[in-house]
Amino acid sequence: MAKKDKIRRPRAETPKGFRDYFGAEVTERKAMLDKIAEVYHLYGFEALESAAVETVESLGKFLPDVDRPNAGVFAWQEAGEDDGDWMALRYDLTAPLARVYAQHRNDLPTPYRRYAMGPVWRNEKPGPGRFRQFYQCDADTVGTASVAADAEICAMLADTLEAVGIERGDYVIRVNNRKVLTGVLHSVFGFDEGTEDAQLGAAYDTATKRDDVLRTIDKFDRVGATGVKQLLTVGRKDESGAFIDGVGLTDSQADPVIAFLTSKGSTSKETLANLLIAVGESPVGADGIEELRQISQLLGAQGYGPDRIVIDPSVVRGLGYYTGPVYEAELTFEIKDEKGRPRQFGSVAGGGRYDDLVTRFTGQAVPATGVSIGVDRLLAALTAKGRIDRTPQGPVIVTVMDRDRMADYQSICATLRQAGIRAEVYLGNPKNFGNQLKYADKRGSPAAIIQGTDEAARGVVQVKDLILGAKLAQDATVEEWKENPSQTEVKLADLVPFIQSLLA
Amino acid sequence: MAKKDKIRRPRAETPKGFRDYFGAEVTERKAMLDKIAEVYHLYGFEALESAAVETVESLGKFLPDVDRPNAGVFAWQEAGEDDGDWMALRYDLTAPLARVYAQHRNDLPTPYRRYAMGPVWRNEKPGPGRFRQFYQCDADTVGTASVAADAEICAMLADTLEAVGIERGDYVIRVNNRKVLTGVLHSVFGFDEGTEDAQLGAAYDTATKRDDVLRTIDKFDRVGATGVKQLLTVGRKDESGAFIDGVGLTDSQADPVIAFLTSKGSTSKETLANLLIAVGESPVGADGIEELRQISQLLGAQGYGPDRIVIDPSVVRGLGYYTGPVYEAELTFEIKDEKGRPRQFGSVAGGGRYDDLVTRFTGQAVPATGVSIGVDRLLAALTAKGRIDRTPQGPVIVTVMDRDRMADYQSICATLRQAGIRAEVYLGNPKNFGNQLKYADKRGSPAAIIQGTDEAARGVVQVKDLILGAKLAQDATVEEWKENPSQTEVKLADLVPFIQSLLA
Repeated sequence: MAKKDKIRRPRAETPKGFRDYFGAEVTERKAMLDKIAEVYHLYGFEALESAAVETVESLGKFLPDVDRPNAGVFAWQEAGEDDGDWMALRYDLTAPLARVYAQHRNDLPTPYRRYAMGPVWRNEKPGPGRFRQFYQCDADTVGTASVAADAEICAMLADTLEAVGIERGDYVIRVNNRKVLTGVLHSVFGFDEGTEDAQLGAAYDTATKRDDVLRTIDKFDRVGATGVKQLLTVGRKDESGAFIDGVGLTDSQADPVIAFLTSKGSTSKETLANLLIAVGESPVGADGIEELRQISQLLGAQGYGPDRIVIDPSVVRGLGYYTGPVYEAELTFEIKDEKGRPRQFGSVAGGGRYDDLVTRFTGQAVPATGVSIGVDRLLAALTAKGRIDRTPQGPVIVTVMDRDRMADYQSICATLRQAGIRAEVYLGNPKNFGNQLKYADKRGSPAAIIQGTDEAARGVVQVKDLILGAKLAQDATVEEWKENPSQTEVKLADLVPFIQSLLA
Repeated sequence: MAKKDKIRRPRAETPKGFRDYFGAEVTERKAMLDKIAEVYHLYGFEALESAAVETVESLGKFLPDVDRPNAGVFAWQEAGEDDGDWMALRYDLTAPLARVYAQHRNDLPTPYRRYAMGPVWRNEKPGPGRFRQFYQCDADTVGTASVAADAEICAMLADTLEAVGIERGDYVIRVNNRKVLTGVLHSVFGFDEGTEDAQLGAAYDTATKRDDVLRTIDKFDRVGATGVKQLLTVGRKDESGAFIDGVGLTDSQADPVIAFLTSKGSTSKETLANLLIAVGESPVGADGIEELRQISQLLGAQGYGPDRIVIDPSVVRGLGYYTGPVYEAELTFEIKDEKGRPRQFGSVAGGGRYDDLVTRFTGQAVPATGVSIGVDRLLAALTAKGRIDRTPQGPVIVTVMDRDRMADYQSICATLRQAGIRAEVYLGNPKNFGNQLKYADKRGSPAAIIQGTDEAARGVVQVKDLILGAKLAQDATVEEWKENPSQTEVKLADLVPFIQSLLA
């Protein structure tokens, strides 16, 4: 008889870039998502849950911040004929929304307000803290060009942050408008008066210099106004002594960019006035500033002052598909980084107006605006601020002293559960009593219930207060436990109120 | 200049076999899952959320009810080197649990009680009502061989069904044991006394006759005991007159099968006594019956009588990987099928003991038992029974009479929201007032708020009770609305209490 091959066992490993979430990691996130959904619902948004899978064709090439098309998604070809559709896991919740709205637009109300929450997938190289599956939590209003929709989402975002436990003063929502940046570029490069704005934009897209200017704007935080001016014009020597070539603009070309970058005033009014100078004669720019003015006015009328939502021209980053107002929620408190240095927590949500995503499908103009909350970052922030309830929530453990009396232990347990007390009978091997208490310890149990033959005969149980007695929980014998002052004999009839007061 | 190519637009289509869930479809399911999670939590189970993606190797070939291996999953090969891992979407929540437990077993408590809920994916031909993504909601206890764990899951399943709104009497949980069926097959075919049970099982696996017997058992519902006896022995003429060949057993071989199929007595005690006859001398069979007896006793002690949980030998179907007790929750009320004929609703949950899934990874024996609730079927059942709250939950709509006074409308809306009243300002084109009311109608709004210049000057609004006035909502003019008795003038300061009483 042939010798049996050695069994090759599969590896028990989370796939690279994915992770498992246990217990409180799951329920804390869920509690946060529930609170967010409550605010979204209060604002009139309806839930939408689309499948994780979309056709590659319908997802399109809108992967945020990435130039690559399908490289960033998990995709496969449908079986069957050679030309089966390519399918992919969704990489965000906006692309599926655009598909859903285009598909169901005759049945959906317009404007369509929807919220969605769930995992999205990115086929990227995993790194520390970077996962290939993560949660997003979005709200969008589709089918209205009114900036009241943008303003409303900013207000809702402020309410949402406060609802989950970020206090006023610990966050700021910064609002800008893509059109203002377009206006600034008009000021720099001039524009053809008779051309449509959209075509103008397309023309600039092809200009390398425009990209150079945008890249330079992004360096403002590091090199300041003087540095940006140098980089836009003649070039600049950096700290290491290396010389960085300039973009080659004239001084008067560079001035609107500097005016833009330094336009933030002490009030929105002042900021908007400064921006008007930066965009010069550009009608698109003026349009963008008027939209910001309206947003500011709408929010002010509802009491959302600049302590919560502020016009801030430095918000220039984000998705390529934004076409109007853009907004970003930043947490302003400091946390310690991995090296113990204090740093600002930074952005936890962002969004803006994207008027072209549905148009891809229908050819009709369908303006839309929406926000996406970075759920994991927000949860990390709440944890860092101690705003997550960390009360141990393990079950009461009914220990097994006598294997044959399992039915009695189950009855005690059932009594507790019927009173709404989380409880379970120890179901491992009951032989080693210490293991039962170690188990209770590992579960974060508030109490263990012990009933030997003697106690059963007298209709009582021993209740071990594990919160009180946690430190003794390692290797004590039954006898040691009985001597422990954190252990109380309780009549079976009094067990529920006793545990209730212990948990209170 | 070359003529522009006609733009090819992507199709806006849900991929075949997938679907979108809107509004109440999402929130009703969520509410049900929340209630289920609450019961699972009360029973001491901890949440686990693994990623949607697993390696194909780790998923294994355990797709329920299907002989095909990877044909039934959505799979793709990781990019990079030629031999990138094959990845797949999980097809259930049990295979990932086995992987998670094998991977983290040193950190997890033993027994490990976990619940999980979320979508799973099956790459099957889609059909009416059959989707390729659907929800499961599981609870499992890993690492204990005690049948107390099986009994507990049956009790929890009963509590869960009642918690979501299935009344006592409308469901029954039927319990059987795979070992009893093995015992019956021992009785039919005999067995080698000295051989280990597991090897015995493997030996039977290869026997075609064994499969024939199992297939015939499955026909009991249709052909009854006499029919099964004929099919197991000499064959049978069916209703159409066609002759079905028999399996070729002798009468005395067939008798244990018939005894098994007709073993259900009026009490569990009686059923168990009948089963003892059916399994004859088989030690595995006797073992299975003893387990059923213990389960019955444990459940009885906690008050779960046969009106809720019953020993029922007819539960023979299910996954190939079950090794001990199996259980199934069936709803016993009738619904109308698509042709209007009454039929029983049937199974909504099932599970059992599977002792080999973790062993695949570790080589060590890790007994486990668990249940999976068919979320969509259970939701359909609740809907059929009218147990889902269908109160319209649309937002109060603040209409826009005067586009320039958007800030005022937003303020009214903010006041309502601050009082916890779901509300929104109409953000579509406000020109046609009828469209605003149609929108409110489509959203299921309880009320619309109207404020023209006149009302604004007097500090009042008109509140249109849309529940009352729904039928007039189609094409009325502003004037007609004002005459309508379901419309009330309310002082701005009284708006919140007025709406609250309207919603109450």
